[in-house]
Amino acid sequence: MSLDWVQAPAAAVDEEAQAAALARQGQLTKPPGSLGRLESLAVQLAGLQGVERPTVERVQISLFAGDHGVAEEGVSAFPQAVTIQMLQNFASGGAAISVLARQLNAKLEVVDCGTLAEAPIDGVIRQAAGAGTANFCKQPAMTAAQLATALAAGRDAVARAEGVALFIGGEMGIANTTAATALACALLNAAPSEITGPGTGLDQAGVAHKAAVIERALALHEAALGTPLAVLQHLGGFEIAALVGAFVHAAQRRLPVLVDGFITTAAALVAVRANPAVRPWLLFAHQSAEPGHRALLKALEAEPVLGLEMRLGEASGAATAVPVLRLACALHNEMATFAEAGVAERND
Amino acid sequence: MSLDWVQAPAAAVDEEAQAAALARQGQLTKPPGSLGRLESLAVQLAGLQGVERPTVERVQISLFAGDHGVAEEGVSAFPQAVTIQMLQNFASGGAAISVLARQLNAKLEVVDCGTLAEAPIDGVIRQAAGAGTANFCKQPAMTAAQLATALAAGRDAVARAEGVALFIGGEMGIANTTAATALACALLNAAPSEITGPGTGLDQAGVAHKAAVIERALALHEAALGTPLAVLQHLGGFEIAALVGAFVHAAQRRLPVLVDGFITTAAALVAVRANPAVRPWLLFAHQSAEPGHRALLKALEAEPVLGLEMRLGEASGAATAVPVLRLACALHNEMATFAEAGVAERND
Repeated sequence: MSLDWVQAPAAAVDEEAQAAALARQGQLTKPPGSLGRLESLAVQLAGLQGVERPTVERVQISLFAGDHGVAEEGVSAFPQAVTIQMLQNFASGGAAISVLARQLNAKLEVVDCGTLAEAPIDGVIRQAAGAGTANFCKQPAMTAAQLATALAAGRDAVARAEGVALFIGGEMGIANTTAATALACALLNAAPSEITGPGTGLDQAGVAHKAAVIERALALHEAALGTPLAVLQHLGGFEIAALVGAFVHAAQRRLPVLVDGFITTAAALVAVRANPAVRPWLLFAHQSAEPGHRALLKALEAEPVLGLEMRLGEASGAATAVPVLRLACALHNEMATFAEAGVAERND
Repeated sequence: MSLDWVQAPAAAVDEEAQAAALARQGQLTKPPGSLGRLESLAVQLAGLQGVERPTVERVQISLFAGDHGVAEEGVSAFPQAVTIQMLQNFASGGAAISVLARQLNAKLEVVDCGTLAEAPIDGVIRQAAGAGTANFCKQPAMTAAQLATALAAGRDAVARAEGVALFIGGEMGIANTTAATALACALLNAAPSEITGPGTGLDQAGVAHKAAVIERALALHEAALGTPLAVLQHLGGFEIAALVGAFVHAAQRRLPVLVDGFITTAAALVAVRANPAVRPWLLFAHQSAEPGHRALLKALEAEPVLGLEMRLGEASGAATAVPVLRLACALHNEMATFAEAGVAERND
């Protein structure tokens, strides 16, 4: 399977629509700039959607799951079986993202990109690249063929997003903050001791152990990490590769993306390093409590919308930011102008 | 009119309901604490509403307007006529808060607490303490009787909030960041040059002039600023006094309040200084771009929910935070527990 599609051009931002939206903001009955980020978000969405008045009513949340061979190194506070148990919880509607998707009236789909689940799970799309990745302390996390399959799982999720105004990718996989931290270290040239965090809740000794595991993996694969996709193959996870494929394809299909937390931002950095034209299509939902997230956001020059100290993943942070985007669009589209309302402009 | 009601006891937080909510959070299918502020907000609302599972479906937004004599000192980027023009804009549905209230399905009421409007405005409740305050550079902003009327306007708005789960107070009044900054300086013992900001959009010279105006007012009234209500009478505004009355009465009626930006937080500080038992009933929506807001939030030990660089007032920041509170409650109420979902807990 060729990976050439990953480098195919992304869509261009519609600068005319963006300029029209910016001009409109200046005419609405408020001091210019006084809606802060709500103004810039509406203007940004206008440029991406190619309309003066954007909307984010129809939202698709694709939740990608994968298991991680590196879990056997004892890097998570939760047992590996939780990946599959949570897939069932997503499908039966009891997980955080299930609740959020219902509240937002968003389409939620769950994709098994390669967990240890032996049988299909009702309500879960199965597009598995393998039964979990290999332990990347011992060998590459995935083969080239597995990488291609996982990237395609993300691409296919975006292909299903017909008529959708905003795409959100989420992830689930015990030990995937270890994989994401390894990716971040390799791409940012950072030391594991600097950016490794507690994930689902390791104590200080657990974090130190996790950093040492990542250190070993980086040393093992050092010579093979020449391209962003090689880094992804050696240190990533199936669900992370699916996110990369989804983000790249969304940008190619003119579909704005709202990026969630630490792990999805690691995937976003891989996507942008592999194809820089992807960057304008990514909005960033929140600053998570995981310490490595700040370094990733900085590398992407990203300003997240929220800062609620969330660290769950599952697209939960992105889902929580959706109402802010919706309100930004409603204000932009529905407020009266100074002329319409007969309100005086400033004294200048 | 007596002001004794302002010091009457506030309701007590229901610690049993709060403890039950906290215990529930620990059982939901997520790593403990991983929903960050969404967890603490739900637990806090449970304690205030006296139920294990809180909701914020029904919201009342009371928007208080007043004119300010100090506007004649040239402290605003907009002409004073905008106060009345915006009242009409609120009533006809074109203002930011009109749009937000519709989106949230919230009840919006607009109260003229003392503008220069000569005739009643359709769709606006009139409970005016006067035709704008006096210029507090020359005399007290209001008389004792006017203060009592304005406080009562806020109390009455809360009395109308039957069956409401969350109260939001907003404000409109050209020059009211000048009044709020003067209040903040008096209550925090801060220098005007330190915390005076651009309000609706003054340039640097305008901010310096505004600070000098506040300096003169503080010097004039120095001997009369012995109590929080005296500070409010001498340096406040009718809409600010209405907010103080509303916040105090909401706490007395067991009604949680979501505080908006700089001006409403100045009112919150007056309310808490006048009646410290009000404090637990106040949640803080956002960190505004107005520089004095940070000092006020710090004095109240408040952690705002959002940080979107908004600076419009009109309750717009509080309205924008409502969906976050609603999602926090939905997660708290609807997520499955580990036992319900058959998900393993952590390895400890």
